[in-house]
Amino acid sequence: MITSAANPKVKKIVQLNKKAGQRKKEGVFITEGIKMFLEAPESRLEEIYVSEGFFRGAGEETAARLERCGYETVSEEVFSKMSDTQSPQGILCVVRQYGYALESIMETDRMPLFLILENLQDPGNLGTIMRTGEGAGVSGIIMSRDTVDLYNPKTIRATMGSVYRVPFLYTEDIRGAVRQMKENGIGIYAAHLKGKKCYDECDYRGPSAFLIGNEGKGLTEETAELADTYIRIPMDGKLESLNAAVASALLMYEAAGQRRRGGKRKQ
Amino acid sequence: MITSAANPKVKKIVQLNKKAGQRKKEGVFITEGIKMFLEAPESRLEEIYVSEGFFRGAGEETAARLERCGYETVSEEVFSKMSDTQSPQGILCVVRQYGYALESIMETDRMPLFLILENLQDPGNLGTIMRTGEGAGVSGIIMSRDTVDLYNPKTIRATMGSVYRVPFLYTEDIRGAVRQMKENGIGIYAAHLKGKKCYDECDYRGPSAFLIGNEGKGLTEETAELADTYIRIPMDGKLESLNAAVASALLMYEAAGQRRRGGKRKQ
Repeated sequence: MITSAANPKVKKIVQLNKKAGQRKKEGVFITEGIKMFLEAPESRLEEIYVSEGFFRGAGEETAARLERCGYETVSEEVFSKMSDTQSPQGILCVVRQYGYALESIMETDRMPLFLILENLQDPGNLGTIMRTGEGAGVSGIIMSRDTVDLYNPKTIRATMGSVYRVPFLYTEDIRGAVRQMKENGIGIYAAHLKGKKCYDECDYRGPSAFLIGNEGKGLTEETAELADTYIRIPMDGKLESLNAAVASALLMYEAAGQRRRGGKRKQ
Repeated sequence: MITSAANPKVKKIVQLNKKAGQRKKEGVFITEGIKMFLEAPESRLEEIYVSEGFFRGAGEETAARLERCGYETVSEEVFSKMSDTQSPQGILCVVRQYGYALESIMETDRMPLFLILENLQDPGNLGTIMRTGEGAGVSGIIMSRDTVDLYNPKTIRATMGSVYRVPFLYTEDIRGAVRQMKENGIGIYAAHLKGKKCYDECDYRGPSAFLIGNEGKGLTEETAELADTYIRIPMDGKLESLNAAVASALLMYEAAGQRRRGGKRKQ
């Protein structure tokens, strides 16, 4: 059992929670909690740590999986130092990062539906967007390199496990990726203040991608220009904008709803 | 100019940021930033503090309003102690709390659309729900007493000013409030795992209210039982639920969309 916070493994976890650069260098990320442990693909689980008292509350499925995968026990005090949360659940995993390619993400069996995020900065928003994306059935999420790190512990928590299931990609060349999508026949819709079309007036039943920009500044002009259509979400009151995760949710579920109902809505 | 963190006014602000009980006792809340200052109703502004260097970056409108309302200057160091944010904008207001009554909230000129929140716990979610509610044109938000404090600084930030404009109410008796709404002819729709109807299959063009429960546990049975209809938001993948702010947004904008289009969607 690890009982000292000076243990190199403990120090490594603390660094991995804090530093995006360290996560990138080692090609891993940290997940916490039973749900995130149970849903993690076994092939990606690199290390597992449980607190001393963890097994007292653990169910059979959890215990069996732990035995199969192997784990290390850590004293409660040290575990709370390793954890990024205020009330640790007593289980923490080191998971290998994903490496999807744009080509493979685009080769989907279902009607393509993408989200393209440019310079999104809020970790919670990004995680919520991925979670909602799974619910709406998106094919994948493409992010500009300057988007917040998806492997941030706060983002990982907000994904509620979707990080294991929704394909995603960071790209240095977001505009190149958009162009490649257009060449593949994917319609590009930009959420934009200049949008004249209401978001529920377009037909997203064909291959579609939504462009969403930074929380404060929106999309860069250069990226917005690549869109086929500018759309807007109508707002009552004196609001200037909606939260980025909310806007993304409305767009993705509008597309999902049209596909589910098999038709556009009555205008 | 206030230059000491021991100044009683400074200490009071720190307490008001930290403690819901203190905010309740004094009947005020704290807002930060220029936008929140400019949008605050003047009649509610009780105290205003600006940092020493604030005026260097302030626009004419801000400066004029400050002169009109009166303010106190605080040294940069002390201001950063008063602020709840990591990068303070240098302006902080003490604003008088709101006291809406259910009867007055229900007396709306427009077609009623309510959100009823039971035991919601995430401050960011609550603020985002209010912001989205303004965008969707809700008449008001009713919350059970055990819902997180709307006057929490994190919630206030997430409202992006909607707190000044969307009527809301905490009630000890959430079920009594739901019954009163039903007596007033308002249809009650509960977002519920037992929901058989898809959320876009109902007609919300008449007076409507959505019931949303706690992030982890959902609605209590007793409250859910009062609903006229259980609705669900379809989810792809392996998700168990959507984020509460996302779910609320989808419901509110579905109602807003039906009213805007003047008709239900084609199923």
